[in-house]
Amino acid sequence: MPMNTRGYAAQSATTPVAPHNFERRDPRPDDVVVDILYCGVCHSDIHQARNEWHNSLFPMVPGHEIIGRVSAVGADVDKFKVGDMVGVGCMVDSCQHCSSCAQGLEQYCLEGATWTYNGTDRRDGLPTFGGYSERIVVSDKFVVTISDKLDPKSAAPLLCAGITTWSPLRHWKIGKGSKVAVIGLGGLGHMGLKFAKALDADVTLFTRSPGKEDEARRLGADHVVLSTDPQQMKAVAGQFEFILDTVPNPHDLNPYLLTLALDGVHCIVGQLQPLDPPVSAGAVISGRRTVTGSAIGGIAETQEMLDFCAEHGISSDVEMIDIQDINHAYERMLKSDVRYRFVIDLASLRKAA
Amino acid sequence: MPMNTRGYAAQSATTPVAPHNFERRDPRPDDVVVDILYCGVCHSDIHQARNEWHNSLFPMVPGHEIIGRVSAVGADVDKFKVGDMVGVGCMVDSCQHCSSCAQGLEQYCLEGATWTYNGTDRRDGLPTFGGYSERIVVSDKFVVTISDKLDPKSAAPLLCAGITTWSPLRHWKIGKGSKVAVIGLGGLGHMGLKFAKALDADVTLFTRSPGKEDEARRLGADHVVLSTDPQQMKAVAGQFEFILDTVPNPHDLNPYLLTLALDGVHCIVGQLQPLDPPVSAGAVISGRRTVTGSAIGGIAETQEMLDFCAEHGISSDVEMIDIQDINHAYERMLKSDVRYRFVIDLASLRKAA
Repeated sequence: MPMNTRGYAAQSATTPVAPHNFERRDPRPDDVVVDILYCGVCHSDIHQARNEWHNSLFPMVPGHEIIGRVSAVGADVDKFKVGDMVGVGCMVDSCQHCSSCAQGLEQYCLEGATWTYNGTDRRDGLPTFGGYSERIVVSDKFVVTISDKLDPKSAAPLLCAGITTWSPLRHWKIGKGSKVAVIGLGGLGHMGLKFAKALDADVTLFTRSPGKEDEARRLGADHVVLSTDPQQMKAVAGQFEFILDTVPNPHDLNPYLLTLALDGVHCIVGQLQPLDPPVSAGAVISGRRTVTGSAIGGIAETQEMLDFCAEHGISSDVEMIDIQDINHAYERMLKSDVRYRFVIDLASLRKAA
Repeated sequence: MPMNTRGYAAQSATTPVAPHNFERRDPRPDDVVVDILYCGVCHSDIHQARNEWHNSLFPMVPGHEIIGRVSAVGADVDKFKVGDMVGVGCMVDSCQHCSSCAQGLEQYCLEGATWTYNGTDRRDGLPTFGGYSERIVVSDKFVVTISDKLDPKSAAPLLCAGITTWSPLRHWKIGKGSKVAVIGLGGLGHMGLKFAKALDADVTLFTRSPGKEDEARRLGADHVVLSTDPQQMKAVAGQFEFILDTVPNPHDLNPYLLTLALDGVHCIVGQLQPLDPPVSAGAVISGRRTVTGSAIGGIAETQEMLDFCAEHGISSDVEMIDIQDINHAYERMLKSDVRYRFVIDLASLRKAA
């Protein structure tokens, strides 16, 4: 008999996220049952709760930056035991046999990964529900270990904001002395600064807002460039080997492309819309520059990132909220009024019961 | 006293290319004087003779696919001697000390390479004149050797169309079994097919015109895909590790991006205009795909390419013309009515004298 679980769900694209009862499956032999303690709030939660990507399934329980404790395990699970602190990110399953999965890059599963919410379970065909909830039931292959060196509250955003910025920095071999720039200082951007600095890069923040210098430096930036100032942009022409572009909305890439060195890479992690205004082929050709993108990260590299964070004392800067404040938090996020990630304390859901 | 030389020049953006007398400098100590035998006709000759890139200097002698014999050398030249068969491509000089030049990538010279025509000599400040001419005088560092195994007529287009397609195939490490697609079957595209095949790749031609199958296979394609047929495009979704895009005009990259495998690369070599319609960030992110570009190639890799061609019996498919037919050739090129490169026999210039 499935477990009845309380959570917060969007009922439609126009209904705010509100209390909801729904069922979680009984654990299968490879499942881990996680009692959720904390869940980060990602910008994509808003997009999906509001059906801005036109693929929303309702009712929808958002949330894919999940930290909790194991409360039960299936018969075949030996990697986790009751009481373990664990994390669940954006995926809960994948085909496990395609060339992407074979490389540990389940996010690029050729059959399509199963997303933590607004997805469809590939075994029972039922909708998946995310972390704004008491509990989640997930195959052990998609559960990661949270070191006791990490504060579980501020570790939550590592499951999406963290891995989304970590994976491209590693893929493009950023290391000692690499000249890296990060565009945008939000949930992703502030993690980009921390990781690039921890990887010993020389780190620049591009920002459109003056007055962020001190914050940027605290988070790891060596330099801050006001991207709206043509003089400052000109001064860094041809400088960077890698730009991590965390801006969630369409924007002009061309001024940034000119700041890339020969063979430089502009990597998009924040937006899914078309690159409008159009990218200049001349800017790309004239320096053999690359425009690329990156989607979250695989499970193995998520664990690698979490272990790196534990070792280097890295976590997200978070602002804790109660689940009852989620709709207000969405409004503040749309005004960039958060430093730098909201995290829901799910104790508030239990208290309300 | 400078040498008086005859050539064919455009006098303005609207005046066709016509006979002209102009001066060539006396050889400097590092100069090689080349009596031009053959010169390929590149699409960019048309753009520049017609000032379509809005940077033309008139009078202009186009031509940067130059083959000729050394007729004199400066005092310090020991790499070439009178009588040698040599080539000159798109560049005649560069700063020689920046990080790009230090890597042998003079085309990305941080101070700007000196172009073979429509450029300005970096020592005397005078305009540079290209290969629709009796003679050219070039620093020995920018002269390459043409093996006697190569037919000099069909070698001419290797100096631009050849190196432009060779360089990205090598940079992106195309080799045995690589799944490569070439978009467009013109001067560049037909060389792309030949090189990709000679590098042991599995080669596909994307074309918008049916009926090119036999030609494409003759030139090295293993497969031909009609890019206007959605069924054929769907059948190759996620297939290619590298696409060489030789199309000279703006076109929609998005259908091609979906044919790239994980980490696949779409490399633009044919157009300088903005990428309109805009590239989908979703297509890039969802497969960690890359859009990049490449400009001609360095002098060392041009020599490497020429030596590879000599060894593997590769050259361009050419149609010989007299210099007097150049304007008609331009008109035919605009209708894609050439297989696959016009080459001017400069004997026609001497005969006319």
